[in-house]
Amino acid sequence: MNQFFDTLNSDNQETGEKEMTERVKPELLGGFRDYLPADMINRQMFIEKIQKIYERFGFVPLDTPAIERSSVLGTDIPDFGMEVYRFTAGDQDVTLRFDLTVPLARVIAAYPDLPKPFKRYQIGKVWRKEKPQAGRFREFVQFDVDIVGSKSMLADTEIIIIIYTTLTELGVDKFLIRFNSRKVLNALPEYVGFDPKRIKDVLRILDKLEKVGLDKVKEELKRQPENVYDEALAFSDESIKKIIVFLQISSGDNIEILKRLSGVFGGNETAKAGIKELREICDNLIVAGIPQKNWEIDLSVARGLDYYTGPVFETTLLELPSIGSVFSGGRFDGLIGKFANDSIPATGASIGVDRFYAALEQLGKLKTIPTTTKVLVTVFNELLGKKSLEFAQKLRNTGINTEVYLNEEKLLKEQMIYAVKQEIPFVVIIGPDEEKKGMVTLKDLQTRKQVLLTEEECLAMLKGS
Amino acid sequence: MNQFFDTLNSDNQETGEKEMTERVKPELLGGFRDYLPADMINRQMFIEKIQKIYERFGFVPLDTPAIERSSVLGTDIPDFGMEVYRFTAGDQDVTLRFDLTVPLARVIAAYPDLPKPFKRYQIGKVWRKEKPQAGRFREFVQFDVDIVGSKSMLADTEIIIIIYTTLTELGVDKFLIRFNSRKVLNALPEYVGFDPKRIKDVLRILDKLEKVGLDKVKEELKRQPENVYDEALAFSDESIKKIIVFLQISSGDNIEILKRLSGVFGGNETAKAGIKELREICDNLIVAGIPQKNWEIDLSVARGLDYYTGPVFETTLLELPSIGSVFSGGRFDGLIGKFANDSIPATGASIGVDRFYAALEQLGKLKTIPTTTKVLVTVFNELLGKKSLEFAQKLRNTGINTEVYLNEEKLLKEQMIYAVKQEIPFVVIIGPDEEKKGMVTLKDLQTRKQVLLTEEECLAMLKGS
Repeated sequence: MNQFFDTLNSDNQETGEKEMTERVKPELLGGFRDYLPADMINRQMFIEKIQKIYERFGFVPLDTPAIERSSVLGTDIPDFGMEVYRFTAGDQDVTLRFDLTVPLARVIAAYPDLPKPFKRYQIGKVWRKEKPQAGRFREFVQFDVDIVGSKSMLADTEIIIIIYTTLTELGVDKFLIRFNSRKVLNALPEYVGFDPKRIKDVLRILDKLEKVGLDKVKEELKRQPENVYDEALAFSDESIKKIIVFLQISSGDNIEILKRLSGVFGGNETAKAGIKELREICDNLIVAGIPQKNWEIDLSVARGLDYYTGPVFETTLLELPSIGSVFSGGRFDGLIGKFANDSIPATGASIGVDRFYAALEQLGKLKTIPTTTKVLVTVFNELLGKKSLEFAQKLRNTGINTEVYLNEEKLLKEQMIYAVKQEIPFVVIIGPDEEKKGMVTLKDLQTRKQVLLTEEECLAMLKGS
Repeated sequence: MNQFFDTLNSDNQETGEKEMTERVKPELLGGFRDYLPADMINRQMFIEKIQKIYERFGFVPLDTPAIERSSVLGTDIPDFGMEVYRFTAGDQDVTLRFDLTVPLARVIAAYPDLPKPFKRYQIGKVWRKEKPQAGRFREFVQFDVDIVGSKSMLADTEIIIIIYTTLTELGVDKFLIRFNSRKVLNALPEYVGFDPKRIKDVLRILDKLEKVGLDKVKEELKRQPENVYDEALAFSDESIKKIIVFLQISSGDNIEILKRLSGVFGGNETAKAGIKELREICDNLIVAGIPQKNWEIDLSVARGLDYYTGPVFETTLLELPSIGSVFSGGRFDGLIGKFANDSIPATGASIGVDRFYAALEQLGKLKTIPTTTKVLVTVFNELLGKKSLEFAQKLRNTGINTEVYLNEEKLLKEQMIYAVKQEIPFVVIIGPDEEKKGMVTLKDLQTRKQVLLTEEECLAMLKGS
């Protein structure tokens, strides 16, 4: 650090004079941001609220490093498919974590003695080198909740209940948790008659249904490739008919959907397993008393399709559907097998904290506060500053969040402006008059009223307010 | 992500079979570590406690990115003097932050409208590529508290009061906050008669006083260089005499030290300013009622010497002096000038969370808890599992942290062992007998007593306990 601070010390610190050219622009990297106090205070309250909910469901916290071996995160394979921060440190190929799920899988394999089911929550920053654009950041916070070591649909149900509870306790009531089973989707190729490798392409087209309408979807499924690079599906009329039947399943209530699913997929073993999963989750949700207006089976929910093996969940804010899912996840029974010999089932979900927070802000669901500080004790001059410090200590010892204005050179008026700017609700003034009488002036910045009080009266009043 | 998860999906997920050779070792990088739940729960409580103290003093939170431009962090200069994680991302030279102070300076310059004094706390991971060794990590957590925009010694006093309050509220009483002023040390070259550039070397030798004794120190100060590379100081007898006078100042009570300092440094303007700083801090601490057994002027406190411009602070745990200072800092009036045209004064201190936490653990000052979960509701079988889920929801709705055992295949006995392992204090059992009677069994795992209760009785009992 020597060189750096030597440079600093060579400045004339008394006057703060320095050649303009020497200064460094206080610039952030593109796609990164600061959280200033007014923002951070409310983000912290938001996160704490969710944390308390997770704990109420018996989850415990975990933390893992920001940097891991690229081989562990899987970013060392060619064509990883996501832009990440991968670099060499010493002689090691390392990557900044891009999610909290792969590190969880590593932890499960690394500490086989962890009691299972292992229910952990984890909050932390993750990094992805995506193109920076409005609302898309390269550093963002994820808040995950996962259950490892349970095949039971009780586990998947519990994840849905946590999503329900979180949204509800954050003051949202117009939301819909939509879920599906990957096993049902995995039965599509056999039922419709296409190569299972094409399932992603099929679902991408079906995803557009709401936007473009059924005719366009049919057209796109039927389209013949125009050249060898064209990946058009060229579905037969019979296949398209079956797709339409499948699409029509997903309307009506959950019991009807399940019935129709059984009718359509009848003998298919994979579909049967998926239907059983969905039925169990529905039964469990009803038993747990989760209102049916907040959840439904939706066969279009697929969640990427690479990663999940059973139930998958998404959460739509009905007043803000355009922002997409705010709390999503699913069962990933295969992931831990990357590191461990045992096949260990797992299910969970993740909040993109920044997106969710921004959505709640937009919906006006966040009661934000500008500061955690309750009182500013002003400082009249250097001598009376000691008096102010002394009384501030009394306030703090009573548990009141108290700031002393730490600049005795500023006029009282400027100190008041500071309190107003910071939205601190109360100001205590100890000037020569107050000092002479052994009292303090308490001013309520909202009502603009001020009263002369003894110290004890002031303490009691602030403690009570 | 495609390729990665395609690999996963090519496994046989039903059986979990996979060739041994394909597995990835779930290994961490050297110098990094996981925080498992038992650890994390208590670290979180520890951090929250400190956070509440900072807030009580009127500080507000800030967060900044983990990655910054190397030019901003100053790591792009040759011979930076600290091993950091510096790499190229796209076409940018970036570094993982190595502290929270340089980012604070950047923030102050980047947002000139932030009201000042700006009192912020910040907790976050920082990264240094030091040689991994026992107790030294490459990723660690710092918890900083700083006041920007105040030249007043009230600010430095407040930092010392925060240190005092933090230690005291964490249950430590045998500690000593030792402070000094860099201005006093900066007067040494003139007083003793040596090149100001050698002050670091001088202080390094003086630092050994306690260890090696006065004779060795004198010897080392006097030593002549043996060759051109030898940086021996070759002090004259007169200079050494003055050094000894200086060393003898720092004993006795604070008022005596200040008197002797004035006597020795008399006319030196820099020393005078430093003595005034120390005197003001002492006066303020007395007014604030901070017990004198917990603080003292110590002229050997230097804190590196590159970075600080006024008061500097260290905190020694008297029962564990070997671990060094757990809460240190000082005034850094020059740092923000790196980014801003205005000279903006600042002072603050930082906790190395991992070291401080480990020290408190060693002193037995941490009341640790193994879990935040209060009740495990066991699951008798798939059918009764629904009953368990239903009752768990009632417990949660009452605010009780409740886990349902999410594996209906396990025997009740195994579920009880799980609760014992996790140190969950209570277990609720809903078997066929309980279900028939419409009741539940509550077992206290500490007393080993169990009682049959109605649901309402059970809720009331757990809520009260």
